[in-house]
Amino acid sequence: MLTSINQFLSASGKSMKRSAIREILKHLQKPGMISFAGGLPAPETFPVNDLKDIVVEILEKNGAESLQYGTTEGDPLLRRMLVERHNRQGLKIGMDNLIITSASQQALDLIARVFLDPGDYVLCGLPSYLGGINAFAVYGAKLKGITLDNEGMKPDELEETIIILKELGRKIKFIYVIPDFQNPSGITLTNSRRLKIIEIADKYDLLIVEDSPYREVRFEGEPQKLMNELDTTGRVITLCTFSKIFAPGFRVGWVVGPPEILDKLVMAKQTADLCTSPFVQKIIARYIEKGLLEKNLKNTIDLYRERRSHMITCFRKYMPAGVSWTEPQGGLFLFITLPPDIDADEIFKKALLKNVAFVAGSSFFCNNSGHNTMRINFSFSNKEEIEEGVRRLSLVICDELNCK
Amino acid sequence: MLTSINQFLSASGKSMKRSAIREILKHLQKPGMISFAGGLPAPETFPVNDLKDIVVEILEKNGAESLQYGTTEGDPLLRRMLVERHNRQGLKIGMDNLIITSASQQALDLIARVFLDPGDYVLCGLPSYLGGINAFAVYGAKLKGITLDNEGMKPDELEETIIILKELGRKIKFIYVIPDFQNPSGITLTNSRRLKIIEIADKYDLLIVEDSPYREVRFEGEPQKLMNELDTTGRVITLCTFSKIFAPGFRVGWVVGPPEILDKLVMAKQTADLCTSPFVQKIIARYIEKGLLEKNLKNTIDLYRERRSHMITCFRKYMPAGVSWTEPQGGLFLFITLPPDIDADEIFKKALLKNVAFVAGSSFFCNNSGHNTMRINFSFSNKEEIEEGVRRLSLVICDELNCK
Repeated sequence: MLTSINQFLSASGKSMKRSAIREILKHLQKPGMISFAGGLPAPETFPVNDLKDIVVEILEKNGAESLQYGTTEGDPLLRRMLVERHNRQGLKIGMDNLIITSASQQALDLIARVFLDPGDYVLCGLPSYLGGINAFAVYGAKLKGITLDNEGMKPDELEETIIILKELGRKIKFIYVIPDFQNPSGITLTNSRRLKIIEIADKYDLLIVEDSPYREVRFEGEPQKLMNELDTTGRVITLCTFSKIFAPGFRVGWVVGPPEILDKLVMAKQTADLCTSPFVQKIIARYIEKGLLEKNLKNTIDLYRERRSHMITCFRKYMPAGVSWTEPQGGLFLFITLPPDIDADEIFKKALLKNVAFVAGSSFFCNNSGHNTMRINFSFSNKEEIEEGVRRLSLVICDELNCK
Repeated sequence: MLTSINQFLSASGKSMKRSAIREILKHLQKPGMISFAGGLPAPETFPVNDLKDIVVEILEKNGAESLQYGTTEGDPLLRRMLVERHNRQGLKIGMDNLIITSASQQALDLIARVFLDPGDYVLCGLPSYLGGINAFAVYGAKLKGITLDNEGMKPDELEETIIILKELGRKIKFIYVIPDFQNPSGITLTNSRRLKIIEIADKYDLLIVEDSPYREVRFEGEPQKLMNELDTTGRVITLCTFSKIFAPGFRVGWVVGPPEILDKLVMAKQTADLCTSPFVQKIIARYIEKGLLEKNLKNTIDLYRERRSHMITCFRKYMPAGVSWTEPQGGLFLFITLPPDIDADEIFKKALLKNVAFVAGSSFFCNNSGHNTMRINFSFSNKEEIEEGVRRLSLVICDELNCK
């Protein structure tokens, strides 16, 4: 009889833990709960009616092809739609610069698999997307965090860190950056910082993994160029996804990069899942072809802008002195900083009792700092829920701060 | 400027190669080509019309939920449908014994990730499914092949191999078995062998990975029990998929096993792709709920039985003496053995010039043997194509054998 599985586990299997966020999300089904925890798009933005027509059309015209195995690189029409879209937006690429993945999370996993050996270093933001950190850690990589200020990752600290790690004989593989409306901080990397980070990567011969799920969810201000567009050295791999600009339920994203790198990612994907569902790829390709993506995205942006502004209004109205927050020009999150002696994990437990949820910021800090920070999502809840949620949260925080 | 990616690659990234089969498949679009190469289901079996109604229904009733992120474990309704179906068929399991994956290939990858460190041994059939072998090799595992006879994997050789590897101080993690209509050999493991292999696994404390994509595609004869059903020691992990019993284009499969193991697989899946598309999971759940899976599967089996029999008839009619083939009671493949001095790779090149394709059997042998074998798919081509393809193939083989 099998007594324990421990003896069978790989080093990676032993180290795995459940994602704190996804575990939280599972327990938020309680009636009356207002959740600012997940990075969930608003279901109101899902174009259900347009999709009905498209799905029927795909089944009628491409039924056999859409239900069969597809190529690992991705559906040719979808790839072409995306290549043309990037070219229109300024990033000049060809078909061999783009492959489809089962959303960005798979791209992070494939990149980790292709590049990371146990002990290799990845440099990331402090804080940074937990799903990225975890994907790299599974392969035994070491994460080293670089502080962000309001212009994004600090280049001086980045370079100093690289020098120190190199002196110690450590192998650094890439810099992981989420340049636009970073998850969780909401901070956007400025153009000059993008150039500076590319320059540093080139100087020390590192790759850059540019994770870009939120870039197109911009409410106001000047769009920044993709680092991939600014780069002239062929060392940027860009991850994009339909999850935030269309719907996460299809699980489709894409990677833009040098053909030599994509070739390795395709080999990795062959053993990971053979191919992403041709059925959903064809639905999305047709959706883009009909011009519906841009139309729907505009509505999504309008809705999220309103929700972001409303949430900031509520924060100003309810939050006690000592609490600060980012006011991002896009994306899905506000990032909250509490006074240094306050522990957001404690706030979280008390908030759940008041039927409001968020994610404690410390999850996103690879160095275990950030205990007084919180990530707050504004895309999922409606205006009434936002107001009531922020009010409930302010009561918990006030209580903790003894401010009344 | 980035000159080469080699310095960035992980050990795994360096070792990756493109799947021979998937590369072949890409080059078979040539007009007039008859392909027996892929393991492709017949598109005629895809229930396009039934799906149209279901997809519209899902979008109308569960639009928001189906397009949002889902839980990593899988859609609750789909899991319940599958648990109930297994219980009806004889395998008594609960909800915590089953999770959804992005088809079986992902399950193989997750199992490799959770269990395999570089240098760990996996015992597999000689021959065995290439996608399994490759998925394990990516994690640095060593594959050791065990000969199959017409009752499947040979238990004596299995036990001797385990004893030798243990004496050498090697760590064996699991036995990889495809018990029913094995890919590529078409051989089904007998009930007594199943019991014997479970006994050996228990004696030497190994896991069994039971890959079962073809079991329900049985044309005649007595269905064998899943090894998971026969096992009383909690060491069998069973991989199932909709790819061959419904359609591969949804990329949905499931894993049955002890909760402790599934828990680790779920953690691995969180960083691999967060979740499988809830949209496609809900479509399949409703399809099963409406009783359409069994109805359609029956038609699929009828069609494949006819094609299998027709292919055997054509083999008997056209093939020269010295060529032998399996006559499987199910599945998708015949396995051909040529005289020992004939190289199937050479036959393959010549066959392509005659517009007929197959997969050279050597790909499936982890010890580089099997050079005189071929895998022939009978599910994809219609009766005319089967006859013409076998005729063309016989001409190439006759030519090689100088039999005329």
